[in-house]
Amino acid sequence: MKAALIVCDGMADRPIKKLGLKTPLEAASTPNLDRAAKLGVNGIMDVLGAGIPPGSDTAHLALLGYDPFKTYRGRGALEALGGGFKVEKEDVAFRGNFATVRDGIIVDRRAGRIDSESAAKLTESISGVLHSEKHPDVKVYLIHTTEHRLALILRGSGLSPNVSPSDPGKEGNPIMEVKPLDGSPEARKTAEVLNEVSRRIMEKLREHPLNIERERKGFYPANAVIFRGGGRLPEIPPLPERFKVRAAFIAVTALIRGVCLAAGMEPINVKGATGTTKTDVMAKARGLIEALETHDFCLLHVKGTDNASHDGNLEEKISMIERIDSMVGYILDHANLEETYIAITSDHATPISVRNHTGDPVPVVILGPEIIGDEVEVFSERSCRMGGLGRIRGQDLIYILMNYLGKIKKFGA
Amino acid sequence: MKAALIVCDGMADRPIKKLGLKTPLEAASTPNLDRAAKLGVNGIMDVLGAGIPPGSDTAHLALLGYDPFKTYRGRGALEALGGGFKVEKEDVAFRGNFATVRDGIIVDRRAGRIDSESAAKLTESISGVLHSEKHPDVKVYLIHTTEHRLALILRGSGLSPNVSPSDPGKEGNPIMEVKPLDGSPEARKTAEVLNEVSRRIMEKLREHPLNIERERKGFYPANAVIFRGGGRLPEIPPLPERFKVRAAFIAVTALIRGVCLAAGMEPINVKGATGTTKTDVMAKARGLIEALETHDFCLLHVKGTDNASHDGNLEEKISMIERIDSMVGYILDHANLEETYIAITSDHATPISVRNHTGDPVPVVILGPEIIGDEVEVFSERSCRMGGLGRIRGQDLIYILMNYLGKIKKFGA
Repeated sequence: MKAALIVCDGMADRPIKKLGLKTPLEAASTPNLDRAAKLGVNGIMDVLGAGIPPGSDTAHLALLGYDPFKTYRGRGALEALGGGFKVEKEDVAFRGNFATVRDGIIVDRRAGRIDSESAAKLTESISGVLHSEKHPDVKVYLIHTTEHRLALILRGSGLSPNVSPSDPGKEGNPIMEVKPLDGSPEARKTAEVLNEVSRRIMEKLREHPLNIERERKGFYPANAVIFRGGGRLPEIPPLPERFKVRAAFIAVTALIRGVCLAAGMEPINVKGATGTTKTDVMAKARGLIEALETHDFCLLHVKGTDNASHDGNLEEKISMIERIDSMVGYILDHANLEETYIAITSDHATPISVRNHTGDPVPVVILGPEIIGDEVEVFSERSCRMGGLGRIRGQDLIYILMNYLGKIKKFGA
Repeated sequence: MKAALIVCDGMADRPIKKLGLKTPLEAASTPNLDRAAKLGVNGIMDVLGAGIPPGSDTAHLALLGYDPFKTYRGRGALEALGGGFKVEKEDVAFRGNFATVRDGIIVDRRAGRIDSESAAKLTESISGVLHSEKHPDVKVYLIHTTEHRLALILRGSGLSPNVSPSDPGKEGNPIMEVKPLDGSPEARKTAEVLNEVSRRIMEKLREHPLNIERERKGFYPANAVIFRGGGRLPEIPPLPERFKVRAAFIAVTALIRGVCLAAGMEPINVKGATGTTKTDVMAKARGLIEALETHDFCLLHVKGTDNASHDGNLEEKISMIERIDSMVGYILDHANLEETYIAITSDHATPISVRNHTGDPVPVVILGPEIIGDEVEVFSERSCRMGGLGRIRGQDLIYILMNYLGKIKKFGA
């Protein structure tokens, strides 16, 4: 028995007037998601808890069966891990953005959405020279993930993630001084290192030929890096050990990769998968079917629905849902449904009206050989509420799947 | 107001191809269970938690409102208590099996399913001589429960249940040496006592006339006892105190009796109740009706459905469900439904396809004078999902019942 978990990031939504009070999932043409609903047992799910808007990282921790409130220790280390850095247990890491500063004010928090290639070059040219003169014992690593996104890793004794961000969160503000958020010497030391490193980065970037060229071309120069989301890795037992399964994942987004890697899952890299609305969903579908040949469990993450939602782009969200539907169609056609359980859900709602994550419950369907089907015929926020799963919690889902796989040890006699 | 809780052990199941994808509960003729569904409010229940396969002991702890993850301390002491031994707080007890060993290898873990009478005689003849020369301060008691089943109780200071079993769990292996599972002197001492006692038991059993006779007749001799499931009693407040009720139970299985006794409930012994598929269900039904005359709450446990499921015997499971149905019919006919709440459920699923406990939700119905009924007309894993109870947890059930009895203290002002 195998299991696949398909997570459509931010797919769940709310009724939209323009759609005659349908949700994007209801308005989209989704014959294959509806086929899954007809074949499966449906329900709704509070990923973290009723009404609590999840981050994609905490949501995935919950979907993998970890209590996010007990295990989550910030995004930074997950993003660094997902970006390819071998984060160690005591490392403190931050999410970073290339940004554009003019006259001391941040004019673009993403440096004109700088392309990945340029961002990688800039990162390479500065990452070697990063250190702190005040705290020479701290090793400083900067890595590029995608587009404007970076991760900064601090390694050394006496560090703490409990410091304020240098990223003010919106344009029109100066880079903020990083401050310790508690009275500990660890937080103070970390803040000092981060402030010094930020200054060094700006010095290096100011005169970088790539930036001079960007200015000349009328692009925003990437002349600063702003930091937020300090954190350590969650201390979680590896999923393959907990459930005695060979576990894999297909995901591009660094943060999601980080969660899955922290859970000890094996990355499967699919050509054409991009973590955007342009991703090759069919390549992902084929990747999943292949992964299930060699693994007991595979998580497949699709990011595009969330991007479109954050952008408030309704048409793109609907179109992304329809592409996900084709992907699901391929998976349903090619998976061996006699020995495979497939769950499809969303890690959180990102309503077009809100353009951010909300704590609404998300629809979920599970199909597979021994489930007890129900009367639900459409996969949506509305119809799944009438399904046989009822209302479950995010952490329940993998236990329900692993129970079907016979992987949960009996508690008691 | 009175309440009865009828627990059908391992009754819940999964769709079975041979039954046209019906579950055994759906395939059986159950006019009385369906009558209960029509009269009552229905739902499904995660006894321990979604997807977590319960033991019957942990399940019953949950059904009686105790948190099994916080209170359960192993089966051994519960089984000894249920078998009639006055287990004390610090006693460490083990479940034991009469077994047959040949040339150092266990050839039958149940000594040919030795009959209760012979097993009782063998136990009597060895229980007096058990002690440890290395640890003479430890008192050793061996008691017989039913058929091949025993309980061993160690009493003394500095003991620990945290030792490995001597029972290898399957035939074809030697008796295992008991080892401490932690570095504590308590675990080491307990392991030493258990190993010494096991050797003494074998010496005594080898030349026992009853075994010599069994060999001559071609039966497996009961020439060893193998141990597992070390534990102490759960530390739980008595149910009669918690809810201010006179509480009783009707159960034969030692483990279930142990849980109910540990909860301070009064045993009601029913002639003809056997804890097998041969049990006299109508005697149990009469016993329940009588118990409700003198008690506010009575749990009635039926084991046969679980036995049939572990044996993978579909016909017997269906037939046992139909006998349970007759029992429920008698209870519905004879209970005063104007002043009695009756809940019917399963402590866990034991699907015929799995032949072991699984973490699937179980159906539950509650009927009684002031419940709000629903549209469910059939008592089954499938239909109860659409009921008015929704999806509850095992620990919720007794609170729901006691609330109807007005026994739960208001929390707050």
